[in-house]
Amino acid sequence: MSKNIDIINHHESVVRSYVRNFPTVFTKAKKHKMWDEDGKEYLDFFSGAGALNYGHNDDHMKEKLIEYITSDGITHSLDMASTAKADFLQKFDDVILKPRDLDYKVMFPGPTGTNTVESALKLARKVTGRTDIISFTGGFHGMTIGSLSVTGNSMKRQGAGIPLQNTVTMAYDNYVDHDTVVYLERFLEDSGSGVAIPAAMIVETVQGEGGINAARFEWLKQIEEICRRWGILLIIDDVQAGIGRTGSFFSFEAAGIKPDIICLSKSLSGYGLPLAVTLIKPELDIWKPGEHNGTFRGNNHAFVTATAALDYWKDDSFEKEIHEKSEIIYNFLEKIVSDYPEIKGEVRGRGFMVGIASEVEGLAEKVTARCFELGLIMETAGPNDEVFKLFPPLNIPKDELQKGLDIIEQSVKGLVKDPVTN
Amino acid sequence: MSKNIDIINHHESVVRSYVRNFPTVFTKAKKHKMWDEDGKEYLDFFSGAGALNYGHNDDHMKEKLIEYITSDGITHSLDMASTAKADFLQKFDDVILKPRDLDYKVMFPGPTGTNTVESALKLARKVTGRTDIISFTGGFHGMTIGSLSVTGNSMKRQGAGIPLQNTVTMAYDNYVDHDTVVYLERFLEDSGSGVAIPAAMIVETVQGEGGINAARFEWLKQIEEICRRWGILLIIDDVQAGIGRTGSFFSFEAAGIKPDIICLSKSLSGYGLPLAVTLIKPELDIWKPGEHNGTFRGNNHAFVTATAALDYWKDDSFEKEIHEKSEIIYNFLEKIVSDYPEIKGEVRGRGFMVGIASEVEGLAEKVTARCFELGLIMETAGPNDEVFKLFPPLNIPKDELQKGLDIIEQSVKGLVKDPVTN
Amino acid sequence: MSKNIDIINHHESVVRSYVRNFPTVFTKAKKHKMWDEDGKEYLDFFSGAGALNYGHNDDHMKEKLIEYITSDGITHSLDMASTAKADFLQKFDDVILKPRDLDYKVMFPGPTGTNTVESALKLARKVTGRTDIISFTGGFHGMTIGSLSVTGNSMKRQGAGIPLQNTVTMAYDNYVDHDTVVYLERFLEDSGSGVAIPAAMIVETVQGEGGINAARFEWLKQIEEICRRWGILLIIDDVQAGIGRTGSFFSFEAAGIKPDIICLSKSLSGYGLPLAVTLIKPELDIWKPGEHNGTFRGNNHAFVTATAALDYWKDDSFEKEIHEKSEIIYNFLEKIVSDYPEIKGEVRGRGFMVGIASEVEGLAEKVTARCFELGLIMETAGPNDEVFKLFPPLNIPKDELQKGLDIIEQSVKGLVKDPVTN
Amino acid sequence: MSKNIDIINHHESVVRSYVRNFPTVFTKAKKHKMWDEDGKEYLDFFSGAGALNYGHNDDHMKEKLIEYITSDGITHSLDMASTAKADFLQKFDDVILKPRDLDYKVMFPGPTGTNTVESALKLARKVTGRTDIISFTGGFHGMTIGSLSVTGNSMKRQGAGIPLQNTVTMAYDNYVDHDTVVYLERFLEDSGSGVAIPAAMIVETVQGEGGINAARFEWLKQIEEICRRWGILLIIDDVQAGIGRTGSFFSFEAAGIKPDIICLSKSLSGYGLPLAVTLIKPELDIWKPGEHNGTFRGNNHAFVTATAALDYWKDDSFEKEIHEKSEIIYNFLEKIVSDYPEIKGEVRGRGFMVGIASEVEGLAEKVTARCFELGLIMETAGPNDEVFKLFPPLNIPKDELQKGLDIIEQSVKGLVKDPVTN
Repeated sequence: MSKNIDIINHHESVVRSYVRNFPTVFTKAKKHKMWDEDGKEYLDFFSGAGALNYGHNDDHMKEKLIEYITSDGITHSLDMASTAKADFLQKFDDVILKPRDLDYKVMFPGPTGTNTVESALKLARKVTGRTDIISFTGGFHGMTIGSLSVTGNSMKRQGAGIPLQNTVTMAYDNYVDHDTVVYLERFLEDSGSGVAIPAAMIVETVQGEGGINAARFEWLKQIEEICRRWGILLIIDDVQAGIGRTGSFFSFEAAGIKPDIICLSKSLSGYGLPLAVTLIKPELDIWKPGEHNGTFRGNNHAFVTATAALDYWKDDSFEKEIHEKSEIIYNFLEKIVSDYPEIKGEVRGRGFMVGIASEVEGLAEKVTARCFELGLIMETAGPNDEVFKLFPPLNIPKDELQKGLDIIEQSVKGLVKDPVTN
Repeated sequence: MSKNIDIINHHESVVRSYVRNFPTVFTKAKKHKMWDEDGKEYLDFFSGAGALNYGHNDDHMKEKLIEYITSDGITHSLDMASTAKADFLQKFDDVILKPRDLDYKVMFPGPTGTNTVESALKLARKVTGRTDIISFTGGFHGMTIGSLSVTGNSMKRQGAGIPLQNTVTMAYDNYVDHDTVVYLERFLEDSGSGVAIPAAMIVETVQGEGGINAARFEWLKQIEEICRRWGILLIIDDVQAGIGRTGSFFSFEAAGIKPDIICLSKSLSGYGLPLAVTLIKPELDIWKPGEHNGTFRGNNHAFVTATAALDYWKDDSFEKEIHEKSEIIYNFLEKIVSDYPEIKGEVRGRGFMVGIASEVEGLAEKVTARCFELGLIMETAGPNDEVFKLFPPLNIPKDELQKGLDIIEQSVKGLVKDPVTN
Repeated sequence: MSKNIDIINHHESVVRSYVRNFPTVFTKAKKHKMWDEDGKEYLDFFSGAGALNYGHNDDHMKEKLIEYITSDGITHSLDMASTAKADFLQKFDDVILKPRDLDYKVMFPGPTGTNTVESALKLARKVTGRTDIISFTGGFHGMTIGSLSVTGNSMKRQGAGIPLQNTVTMAYDNYVDHDTVVYLERFLEDSGSGVAIPAAMIVETVQGEGGINAARFEWLKQIEEICRRWGILLIIDDVQAGIGRTGSFFSFEAAGIKPDIICLSKSLSGYGLPLAVTLIKPELDIWKPGEHNGTFRGNNHAFVTATAALDYWKDDSFEKEIHEKSEIIYNFLEKIVSDYPEIKGEVRGRGFMVGIASEVEGLAEKVTARCFELGLIMETAGPNDEVFKLFPPLNIPKDELQKGLDIIEQSVKGLVKDPVTN
Repeated sequence: MSKNIDIINHHESVVRSYVRNFPTVFTKAKKHKMWDEDGKEYLDFFSGAGALNYGHNDDHMKEKLIEYITSDGITHSLDMASTAKADFLQKFDDVILKPRDLDYKVMFPGPTGTNTVESALKLARKVTGRTDIISFTGGFHGMTIGSLSVTGNSMKRQGAGIPLQNTVTMAYDNYVDHDTVVYLERFLEDSGSGVAIPAAMIVETVQGEGGINAARFEWLKQIEEICRRWGILLIIDDVQAGIGRTGSFFSFEAAGIKPDIICLSKSLSGYGLPLAVTLIKPELDIWKPGEHNGTFRGNNHAFVTATAALDYWKDDSFEKEIHEKSEIIYNFLEKIVSDYPEIKGEVRGRGFMVGIASEVEGLAEKVTARCFELGLIMETAGPNDEVFKLFPPLNIPKDELQKGLDIIEQSVKGLVKDPVTN
């Protein structure tokens, strides 16, 4: 084993996880490719779990970042004003919000997904004076106590070491055979249900960790309607599904809804640097100065790359490109499910956030392990790791995308053909 | 007002805070200096609230960072292995842990202070099977629900919108006229006290936000003894006081204690980039893989600069330098208190984490405002902002340090001489 | 207004409730009748909300009680041994438990319904080491914080003044159009659902306060099966539905289930005196001595009357009598619903725990108010008081039962005939 | 062993407690005496843990009770109006409140101590809109979750099976060597203390279960002042210390304070029957009708005896009698401590709520066990059962009191003289 793996095994906490599935040491990365210290090349269909939607080390952003660092631009500014921040705010409004007829205040809640979720929950409670949040089965929102309270995974919840409170879990779309919205509203309208009108509902339009479950647009619209009817704030956690992953900048655009609060992080900086924002309808922006703070709210390197990344969204060409490639992926997955009935597969997801759920226990893990040997990085998802999940960079060239899909088919075929040895 | 300030006022949430005290737009920074868009130069006695202990854009780190970015090194790696991470782990052990006879596993809990605190609290509860945490008056540990539960500030606590649970607050050193340790242990030894043996105590050796309160080493030792006696884990939150701020790499070294869990962030990356680690005694490292996770655990840019920053600690010259300059600062503050009795001041703190608490209401805020006009950036601390707080970079040259101190005296003198107009 | 009503209005807290619906001062009661200070006679179809299943001041119990008091028998004994307690325990086993092939330890948790519920929840958590309890929509279990946490009514929950925790509410039978058991088990089997395996489920077989909702026996059996499958304790709260109210001593007998813990109170003493027991499967009886206590666990007057009351259950004649009269009541209610379609009624309940839910807003309250004028005491139930609820004593003579039913019909008819003035 | 003890051992839950210390079956009781089934006579210095301040089966109350039962007076009335209730309310105002210049609304929260405490906590939170309650070390308030949250005993707290929340424990008077009020107020005035201004403080003037700790009047006054200064409600839990136990009807009279809410139960009914009231300052009586309810709020037998019991308080002769006998007890205890230095004793308490705390481990339990053999019933108190506690009926004749004291001395002397065999 390599010296560097030794170092990590020896010094890093046993909580480390992905290194166990991808047991090599990476040294270099470019666009949709990674290389390890032995020089082996990998296609990356993982994309930092959605933090690298534009691939690794995008040249345009890289140039801007080096230029900024070289010129001794402000690196760390807490929430003081910097030109890098102002540039980002202005361009975010110009390129993203205004063209979509959206009006939100931008809060920098700290640079990670769980920071934005925690800020959203706090604000919703403050605005409404209520304590409960409704979250959904299969939801994943983060590992700090507030976010963990609205996360479904039982192993992660037990990690809290304390009962997680002030939340109610309702069934996500397609969780059972009947309409889950009916059930949800029944609890709200019945004053004897034991479920109080909550401060907010927090929803992912497509659940990543939960198993690549895509809610129907109709369901999302109904959820928004219920929120309006009962004066409940609608928080869309777009940390993983946002920034183009499902086909549009915000994942909820096609559903035609306007959340009260939006959580963004992961690919927001474009370059893989920590950055998060909480978007707040102006009338809800009632924080006291400093009521929520944090040391790394002003990560200016990330402002610089995030501003550069917005160039992808200046017109609709990028969205079109995503849609075209999404079709390729989707058709491929449908074909796999159809050609290999032995895997008892079901295609899940939307856009570039897709996968196959297999009823064959352990199969998804074998598929991804085989892919890794074949030079493709891909992870599993779902409460029992029953889904193998395709998360290629959105800007991957079609031929390279096809190469990755071929590896997946090769992996599946090998497992099906040779079931005895697996 | 500048266009950029307009942008920020218009687009950023009202939660923004420091920009109100330092109402200008910063563009560039180097070492202990910052410049705004009008070209005005400032001495920085704020240091990103402790995130810039080595000053801004340190040349050595900058070189390493640009080199890394240029070579397309891995930027974002979740918790996969990368050479940048392995290099950091090895050097951290070689330069920091081993020479101090310390043995800890390194957990990357997400890149911010509140991530490391949340991970520490979760682990302490998991290890002990208990739910309560004892925290201390004046403590500040972060803004996510777990960390906020152990934070003292009432305004920030109310921001939670829910009752904060599973914690007990005890009196910090010097909180009242008698020995607070006696009181604390009385509660533990009395089975009728209503206070259960907690999973852990979380302590800052010097409280920053709480008003620059430095606990006596003797008190810290007693706290450690109590923890040992009752099987309680001792968590030192060294996010602000660590990385040299109080004179040694870890703030607790001089007290001769060995915490069970240590939280580090802020200046850990050296360059102001988001990075945090949780140091765990090996026998307590019982996490399940992935039981705590997060997207930005593998911020490789920060690994690179953090590794470079460790060069400051290769021998004891940096510590000596800090001590020498600390004396200058301390003597200056004592003189101010003595020469200007009108401010009813008291010197607080340790090392480069010091300030003057004034009984004159509003005085500390006036001092820092006047300093800002005079080109010095400095903030206030304490529950009523009654402390003005000196946080210069540790590597500031002596003459530049003196310039800053002169500005402070000038500010104080002006306020005292001309009390009518203030 | 009478002097005594004046006294009550002046001195008693505004929290008083029934006195508002029955605005007179009662002086005397016998069997199914009450008299007020003006000598007006009332039929009692309320029975102390189920605490007077044998009617008022039953002669047999009264005789035993006076004899006991006269002889200076122990009145109050905490949980010391008394002959009255031993007599009760032996006879309860002989008459109730053994003939039903049941084996339970008897805990005296304090003399009220909420005491027994609190003790059941505490024990379930202690036995399993888990914190959550699953309760059901429409459930009512008491007003102290533990019991209130599993109670559905929102007005009463808000009275807590704190968030109510460690509970999950699931849909009771017939709550929505599909099978609620399927939904419930889906949450348990899915490790990503956000709902942990609970310590216990607490169920009423027929919900009183919740609107006289009777769960199907099939549903109760399925609930028991789920509890067995997942190692969850099944608590039946038989405080209101027990002691014959639904036709058998325990309300769950016909469903063929054996709860792990049973809560009894209300009519247990037979005479309206405060008494409660928690029945515990022997293997679950792992309390430490005194771990749950209370001053009035040893209410010996209640032991005496409770022992006398058990004579009703020495053979099956009483059950038969209840069944016969239940049919009369049920047929009457069906006829009312059919004859007066204007009330948009639905018959609810089981045995002597029945009522009519009306979709006409305010109708149920008008029916009971009119009945009161006509000399019949009856209350409403349901989250919106949409049910008028018949709770006659179980031993009411048939002709007197019929008189009460006639008054109800008269009341309904009057409201329907003359809708304008109401 | 007796058949009845067998029955109890076989059928009653292991949670039973006092029967273990007093292993006999009681059959009859009168005034300060009890008899078991073997005809053995006992002096009762336990008084139902304060529920039998007037002794057993007081003739005057007994006569009224039998008369009421015989006449078929209302037994159970929920919170409907009854003549028995009106009589009690009027007399309570005439005999107790008015002469003390007190004005309170009377709430019937359910018939036990924990019911009144739970109602007090709920109301305090409702009135103030705050969630926290400050309770005190050594406090005992009941076993339901709300009351248990403010109770100190760790064994009982662990019985909850869930973390107990929304409370802060502060040091009772004399808990440490310095003034605990100073410490308490420091937390309130410091906005960074982590302790929010609570809804209420709940205090016992003398702690029974906690070890017979009597707070100084001066301390109680200071607590009241702090409550007034910070808008905190003062709840006096007078369940055990009230109704004459410490020398006056309310235990706080001599301290000259006027609580916002008072909890009474135990000896309120006079006869040992379950009864409790919550006394509420009129301006705080803002309950909604039925917001707190309970089946046994209207225990009319208890109203009848409680009304009769008030005759003891028609003039000040009873108080004088208590004071005289208190002196006898107090002098006796001082003499014991002085004459038997081997027991390392300290006299604790006030009035008829007194005891000796012994530093000799296990001694208090031996004293009470020996007394039981000698025909005296007495219990221990304190977190380690280190106190033997004298709770004779207040109306015990002086000669009979002396007999009991003689038995105690005999018991102590035996233990001291013959330490080897113990």
